[in-house]
Amino acid sequence: MSDLEAALVYAKDHQTDFLEEFLSFLRIPSISTLPDHKDDMHQAADWIANRLQSSGFESVAVMPTTGHPVVYGEWMKAGKDTPTILFYGHYDVQPPDPLELWISEPFVPQVRGEDLFARGASDMKGQVVAHLKAVESMLATSSLPVNLKYLIEGEEEIGSPNLGSFISENKDLLSCDLCLNGDSSILAPDVPAITISLRGLAYFEIRIQGAAGDLHSGTFGGAVDNPANVLSKLIAGMRDDHGRITLPGFYDHVRSFSDTERAEMISMPDEWWKEQSGASVLFGEQGYSPTERATVRPTLDVNGMLSGFTGEGSKTVLPAQAMAKISMRLVPDQHPERIKKSLEEYLKTHAPPTVTWELEAMASSPPAIVEHDSSAVHAASRALEAVWGVKPVFQRQGGTVPVVGMVQELLGVDSLMLGFGLPDDNLHAPNEKMHLPNFRRGIETYIRFMFEISL
Amino acid sequence: MSDLEAALVYAKDHQTDFLEEFLSFLRIPSISTLPDHKDDMHQAADWIANRLQSSGFESVAVMPTTGHPVVYGEWMKAGKDTPTILFYGHYDVQPPDPLELWISEPFVPQVRGEDLFARGASDMKGQVVAHLKAVESMLATSSLPVNLKYLIEGEEEIGSPNLGSFISENKDLLSCDLCLNGDSSILAPDVPAITISLRGLAYFEIRIQGAAGDLHSGTFGGAVDNPANVLSKLIAGMRDDHGRITLPGFYDHVRSFSDTERAEMISMPDEWWKEQSGASVLFGEQGYSPTERATVRPTLDVNGMLSGFTGEGSKTVLPAQAMAKISMRLVPDQHPERIKKSLEEYLKTHAPPTVTWELEAMASSPPAIVEHDSSAVHAASRALEAVWGVKPVFQRQGGTVPVVGMVQELLGVDSLMLGFGLPDDNLHAPNEKMHLPNFRRGIETYIRFMFEISL
Repeated sequence: MSDLEAALVYAKDHQTDFLEEFLSFLRIPSISTLPDHKDDMHQAADWIANRLQSSGFESVAVMPTTGHPVVYGEWMKAGKDTPTILFYGHYDVQPPDPLELWISEPFVPQVRGEDLFARGASDMKGQVVAHLKAVESMLATSSLPVNLKYLIEGEEEIGSPNLGSFISENKDLLSCDLCLNGDSSILAPDVPAITISLRGLAYFEIRIQGAAGDLHSGTFGGAVDNPANVLSKLIAGMRDDHGRITLPGFYDHVRSFSDTERAEMISMPDEWWKEQSGASVLFGEQGYSPTERATVRPTLDVNGMLSGFTGEGSKTVLPAQAMAKISMRLVPDQHPERIKKSLEEYLKTHAPPTVTWELEAMASSPPAIVEHDSSAVHAASRALEAVWGVKPVFQRQGGTVPVVGMVQELLGVDSLMLGFGLPDDNLHAPNEKMHLPNFRRGIETYIRFMFEISL
Repeated sequence: MSDLEAALVYAKDHQTDFLEEFLSFLRIPSISTLPDHKDDMHQAADWIANRLQSSGFESVAVMPTTGHPVVYGEWMKAGKDTPTILFYGHYDVQPPDPLELWISEPFVPQVRGEDLFARGASDMKGQVVAHLKAVESMLATSSLPVNLKYLIEGEEEIGSPNLGSFISENKDLLSCDLCLNGDSSILAPDVPAITISLRGLAYFEIRIQGAAGDLHSGTFGGAVDNPANVLSKLIAGMRDDHGRITLPGFYDHVRSFSDTERAEMISMPDEWWKEQSGASVLFGEQGYSPTERATVRPTLDVNGMLSGFTGEGSKTVLPAQAMAKISMRLVPDQHPERIKKSLEEYLKTHAPPTVTWELEAMASSPPAIVEHDSSAVHAASRALEAVWGVKPVFQRQGGTVPVVGMVQELLGVDSLMLGFGLPDDNLHAPNEKMHLPNFRRGIETYIRFMFEISL
């Protein structure tokens, strides 16, 4: 029996134990955003560290940050000529509110049919446990075919405020050849998938100042400009009627795709987008399908807008200020820094002399792409096909996973997104679940992937 | 000695008493917006009713409304062929906050130099007392040359929510030939003025609905439209680059002025507008001075705007809703109802099919004008000139006095705005004051006006 077969047999034989372990991890209410759960955060971090230690990892540490701790572990016995993989995950979960919409308690996991319901089941304790159990299965039967490091943070759900500095301060410790990011999903229970691109993000706050203070719109209306009208006009000018963004140079570095590449991308039908979004009419850049527009084309959206009086009733104020939060989703090879310059240039050209403006760059993350034709993608493909019996599809996701950008920037490595959530897992919502066959297949996939990547 | 002279002599002889009376009225903290001051409201209403009664008014009543009571009184002995004047005023005041900025207590009136400092001194207890004392001076010495009714409300500072229905329910009681509205001001201590026009108001809330609920801007950005972007575009399209409003038919009923009329209007210099507004650059409809734009030309301003996430930091939401409060200041002969139709038509034409919209008409008031060449304006002019020694200027104000519109609509009469506040009286602000020479001249002016209007 090969090492691979031995590990797979072990995993199969321990399915009940693994589920029990998963349940015990889900019972820890590790809600990163709530200060009351500080002890739970430490308990969840310790839970992972203990599993790594008992599996045979050499250095395991719960490392402090300004916020919640990071779990680090490494197993480096595969030798210098063998790749080093960094597994990224997070042990924190979203708050469970609104509680009344949960069928069973969020932190009392319940199996109903083939699904396991609990907060964090899919996002992403399921993946963390699956990988830990893959590691256990291999180390209990032989050894790991690759060097492996673990980086499990406790602040993903609050925007990873301390992860960047943690990685910066521990570059040597975390150095690796590839990051395996388990915070991902597949398309359907029988449709395995690899995420090969993510959009980046450039998020800004624009603040427009008119007069020194709020004015009476009767006394001054008509004599002075109104920053809310000005802001509306500025926003209106950022996009044309065909959904194309008009900031100078905005599309300069956008990678284009050949017709063959476009044909290969999975495109969901319009009806699917309408159903998922609840929008009765779709809208976006002309010449592209909704899926293309939401994954491989950049966007510009107002995320928030505030000016003047917004309570009930009517107040005749001529506001002194107006604010908008505006963000762009970026695609290869756009870069947040260049986009900021482009927005600044637009504002310099178009903001009238009747107002002053400030632009604050907030969250930003470069877009990420894993080359289709890379050893990581090939290894993941073979692993998924062996488990699922069908070739995986290649997903391009519209969202941003900031850690992917950080890892690229600070450690200089690509991330392979390989996780086993499903689109209907109710992430960040009541009745979050993990599809249990995916959990089991996930363990097998991670085992196979580690063998495949070592080839 | 004529009746007029006798009244003027009485007023002069009683200056000290009148000031004492003014002080006693100012000591009542009749803050309409604060429920704790309910008793004070009744006390202030009774204070006026008592003065009317002791002056010799026939029917005086403190009449209940759903909110604070209205003081009504009448003296109808001048005969059927003599005009009936309705004096309008309000006995409520603004809250005094921020208290720490007051030099003396807001409800402990203090004379410093020629000014009397107290909340409500200028807005508008000064005018109410001045008129009461004018009436006392005439009735104590002879009688009134006109029939006189009093309508003093207690809810002006909270938007007169019950005045419309009160007037509707008491049309016969309040019937008159002219409303004399004392809630007004003059330009400077030595520059008497009559306000001959006020702008109207049409205030709306526009609500734009995109998808059914808030969406993740990464997952859906690019595939569906964004109601905040749409709203911005709709607002941007309501005004051109030259400050002209582009709603269909918006200017159809705007009265134009001849060059002679325009030359007669007082126009404050640009520097004055900059200083008053705190705006370093002015803006408005091309071809008109700032004063014209703020008084005899209509406007469209955003008063408030809200969508999506407006807290600290960045949240990548694609909002489902966006809202704006938008109001137009109207000039003769625009009408709020027609303006609403114009806005509706604009939205019907320009709102894209990717969103739905709702338009709610909120506060509205027609513009008001007193004909320059009317007996009321002539009478007021003669009265002011006799007291001040110079001809009054004719002011056109940019604000809206809703009661003027109500009186026009419900009683069918014009309002003459004749009050004695000053631009620097700190209305609605700390250290509100009344310039005492204006208070004394106000009494004399009201006496003379009542004689002049009876001619």
